[in-house]
Amino acid sequence: MTVREGLRPGGRSARIQESVHEAVNALLNEMPRDRITVSTVATRANVTPSTIYRRWGHIDSLLADVAVNRFHPESLPEDTGTLRGDLEAWAQAYQEEMSSAPGRAMIRDVLAGTDVGGGGPASQCAAIARAHIQILLDRATGRNDSAPGAYDVMDMVVAPIMYRMLFDDKPLDPTFAVSRVNILLSAM
Amino acid sequence: MTVREGLRPGGRSARIQESVHEAVNALLNEMPRDRITVSTVATRANVTPSTIYRRWGHIDSLLADVAVNRFHPESLPEDTGTLRGDLEAWAQAYQEEMSSAPGRAMIRDVLAGTDVGGGGPASQCAAIARAHIQILLDRATGRNDSAPGAYDVMDMVVAPIMYRMLFDDKPLDPTFAVSRVNILLSAM
Repeated sequence: MTVREGLRPGGRSARIQESVHEAVNALLNEMPRDRITVSTVATRANVTPSTIYRRWGHIDSLLADVAVNRFHPESLPEDTGTLRGDLEAWAQAYQEEMSSAPGRAMIRDVLAGTDVGGGGPASQCAAIARAHIQILLDRATGRNDSAPGAYDVMDMVVAPIMYRMLFDDKPLDPTFAVSRVNILLSAM
Repeated sequence: MTVREGLRPGGRSARIQESVHEAVNALLNEMPRDRITVSTVATRANVTPSTIYRRWGHIDSLLADVAVNRFHPESLPEDTGTLRGDLEAWAQAYQEEMSSAPGRAMIRDVLAGTDVGGGGPASQCAAIARAHIQILLDRATGRNDSAPGAYDVMDMVVAPIMYRMLFDDKPLDPTFAVSRVNILLSAM
């Protein structure tokens, strides 16, 4: 199960994607997600089921694709003037967003639509987080400050937040993200 | 969806659990997991469907419970004489086990049977890994060596392995686990 990445739909293809995504979002407000099928989406979006199967292959891939799109944040992380300030603000916002009910629903859909070790929507999520982090790191080097690599931030900050959310039975301490940034920067 | 943790079944209850788990493992060898239902398991295990619903609630919870049991390793990690050696050996074996086809299937079942942020089978998996790590750390303190906390190892070694497996589109570098142990120990 993979979402077709790299596809740059234009014209008719873009209109189909938009109406299918809108149909899924509308249905998500009306019924439990496990009752949403390719056929209910097709009817609502006014396309044939085979159009959906051709592009997404499986209802889980479609739900994951919609989840990644919902998650695409619109604004850049704020510029606090220091790398530490930028990373702390970003990491805290990331933890809060992921711990929220919509964030947890997004993670569930994305993982359900991704084979373990297989890329797809989960890797799009990671790429979005990494792109944000890279902006903060570029700001730091623009100030002639030293900065870690984007993967260092993923391994030291993002990974433990996500691991504890997925595998821990305790709610995440609200200060956890900031404590991870401290550990990252003190290891540099 | 949660697996009933803390339940210590004995007698009839233990026999039911054993025969239901055996039925699931047999069915997993015969058909795709998404065709396994409470009803097919009940027939094979010679119990009523309501017995399964009462104890597991949902087929995903049952599959996750069986996956956690399959994952329960039997032997202690080897004693190499140093904390570094012990941690490197354990982390490498952990990464290899999780990256294997049965490991990936286990992760998929466990996450599908666990609400994000909700504990359940996923937290049992984390607890098993943490218990193993604690044994290595206790060996180190027994040698009068200094040792990090078990959660430090989880955040610095286990979390990045699992995050990259779940969210990265590239296969994990075989040396990744050992490199994480190096970073952990050099930060101490």
